[in-house]
Amino acid sequence: MSNSTGYHVAVMGATGAVGQQIIQTLEKRNFPIRKLTLLSSARSAGKQVSFNGETITVAEAVPESFEGVDIALFSAGGSVSQKFAKEAVKRGAIVIDNTSAFRMDPEVPLVVPEVNAEALKNHRGIIANPNCSTIQMVVALEPIRKAFGLNKVVVSTYQAVSGAGAAAIEELNDQSKAILDEEHYEPQILPVGGDKKHYQIAFNAIPQIDKFTDNGYTFEEMKMINETKKIMGMPDLKVAATCVRLPVETGHSESVYIEIGQNDVTVENMKEVLNGAPGVTLQDEPKEQLYPMPAMAAGKEDVFVGRIRQDLDEKNGFHMWIVSDNLLKGAALNTVQIAESLVKLGLVNAPQHSS
Amino acid sequence: MSNSTGYHVAVMGATGAVGQQIIQTLEKRNFPIRKLTLLSSARSAGKQVSFNGETITVAEAVPESFEGVDIALFSAGGSVSQKFAKEAVKRGAIVIDNTSAFRMDPEVPLVVPEVNAEALKNHRGIIANPNCSTIQMVVALEPIRKAFGLNKVVVSTYQAVSGAGAAAIEELNDQSKAILDEEHYEPQILPVGGDKKHYQIAFNAIPQIDKFTDNGYTFEEMKMINETKKIMGMPDLKVAATCVRLPVETGHSESVYIEIGQNDVTVENMKEVLNGAPGVTLQDEPKEQLYPMPAMAAGKEDVFVGRIRQDLDEKNGFHMWIVSDNLLKGAALNTVQIAESLVKLGLVNAPQHSS
Repeated sequence: MSNSTGYHVAVMGATGAVGQQIIQTLEKRNFPIRKLTLLSSARSAGKQVSFNGETITVAEAVPESFEGVDIALFSAGGSVSQKFAKEAVKRGAIVIDNTSAFRMDPEVPLVVPEVNAEALKNHRGIIANPNCSTIQMVVALEPIRKAFGLNKVVVSTYQAVSGAGAAAIEELNDQSKAILDEEHYEPQILPVGGDKKHYQIAFNAIPQIDKFTDNGYTFEEMKMINETKKIMGMPDLKVAATCVRLPVETGHSESVYIEIGQNDVTVENMKEVLNGAPGVTLQDEPKEQLYPMPAMAAGKEDVFVGRIRQDLDEKNGFHMWIVSDNLLKGAALNTVQIAESLVKLGLVNAPQHSS
Repeated sequence: MSNSTGYHVAVMGATGAVGQQIIQTLEKRNFPIRKLTLLSSARSAGKQVSFNGETITVAEAVPESFEGVDIALFSAGGSVSQKFAKEAVKRGAIVIDNTSAFRMDPEVPLVVPEVNAEALKNHRGIIANPNCSTIQMVVALEPIRKAFGLNKVVVSTYQAVSGAGAAAIEELNDQSKAILDEEHYEPQILPVGGDKKHYQIAFNAIPQIDKFTDNGYTFEEMKMINETKKIMGMPDLKVAATCVRLPVETGHSESVYIEIGQNDVTVENMKEVLNGAPGVTLQDEPKEQLYPMPAMAAGKEDVFVGRIRQDLDEKNGFHMWIVSDNLLKGAALNTVQIAESLVKLGLVNAPQHSS
């Protein structure tokens, strides 16, 4: 592979939308890899994927696939993680899991490196990668919390279909074409592949992401609420979320209202703190019509923040607009950054020479 | 025309998107019209419009066009209203103005009939129709305010392009086709026809509607804030807004967080109050995936409310999702309903027989 010295890395779910992004991100960021093992279900096994100029054949995952693996990156759905993550850990691998299977397990660190890389030190083999909408929000909120404190967050999301997988992207494109041609197209995937009803996403907005829980919130909304508290280490932080799916291919946007811990902070102070904060790009010049948008954030690594305004009634209230690529910082990039943090903190086996 | 007894009604801006909807709404609701005068700029004059089976030729507006008119419905832009509204009033007409020209004038009632029809009694010739996003929100909030009080509103909007006129609809459609065909399409209209920069709206979300004011809010956001306070008669209500344009043709959606005046209200109480409230249709059964969506609200008269949830931290906090057709309740329908209220309250000249 690319390096003669490095780690044996496995990617579980290598043929999926996020799996593909993980492989590209490992290559792009030159992660020290001695051996790359690509795994999938029986259905996708046998496919070929290129990495650093070589062609790797995807193998069907079995427990023994993880023998000798140092770091295993999982993004093949919660049930696959439930089945294989502990098998991988048993064989000495550290698992970084992109599903919601272990996120709220108190023994599993839930990590966004810009916010809580230190939590990695307590890992017991499995580390969880948060929900895409949560990651981009906490990257923007953490520098604010550090500087001014944080009491309350009310977020409304504007989420892209790629968060629901490749089939949802295809549905948006095909349905858009059909509607523009005045043809019928029966919705089959969105809002949720496994739910009872499906609705038109093209030229529409659907206020449902994931299924509903008993309290009237969706699982996506509860993920944002609970994961934000866990990552920021603030169990008493007030967080509320409304999650909405848009006819956008890639790039989640968020309209966020916050109340901070100080009453004398200005918009300029807020911009100073965000400008240059880890993982953040400030895009906020109203007079120049400069603000973040999903079509422009897609393919980029940073979390983009703009439209920062002081609330007109609450002295400690601010509004902002946060946009990021949900497949990169929202998934693949954060996963690889967790692996990089493990290396930096000396939490992985020493890198080996390839034999 | 349709009735031998009734009013002489004029529609200013008869060939525009909202003007067309006003004419259709007058017909559909069988407003008592003795004579219908259709007016426009010189550019559109001469076009023919059908009304109740007859064909009416649109005339170029001059001050004398308003001689004998009882009710004049204006929707031809703020500068046209500035130029002609007072000319119409001088000639005895009551003007219902769909632009922002007079909305915040303390002498001009700003009316949503379900909320403040009584304010019409103080009119001095001009009545203002509020901003589309404001109308649908106050229709849903008024029954809540009446029952439980209202302290605070934080709204994030999901607005359709038809609010920016027929050219914006065409831009969305043509641009969507071009992107699906992987062709280039230079944005020319959105976010704001008269602003410096234009951005892709297809498969994107633009956090700018109308131009920016000096405080970092857009005019659209300031309209929602100021108009809500005026219509609800609550100068001290805390209101904050973030307004976002979506690739949706018709139907504005709003994610609304409110804090009410009581601490013991349940979601069921909230639903009871909204169910059957004037102009409101409750669509809120999460287990059945029933909630409002713009593609389904387009062409309908009501304001649809769903996703009602209690905030998980604030006892007096609630979240909801409000959707309505921005051209109907957001513009044409509310304008015609104001005219109907004027008749009902006896505030117009007595209807005349046609000669």
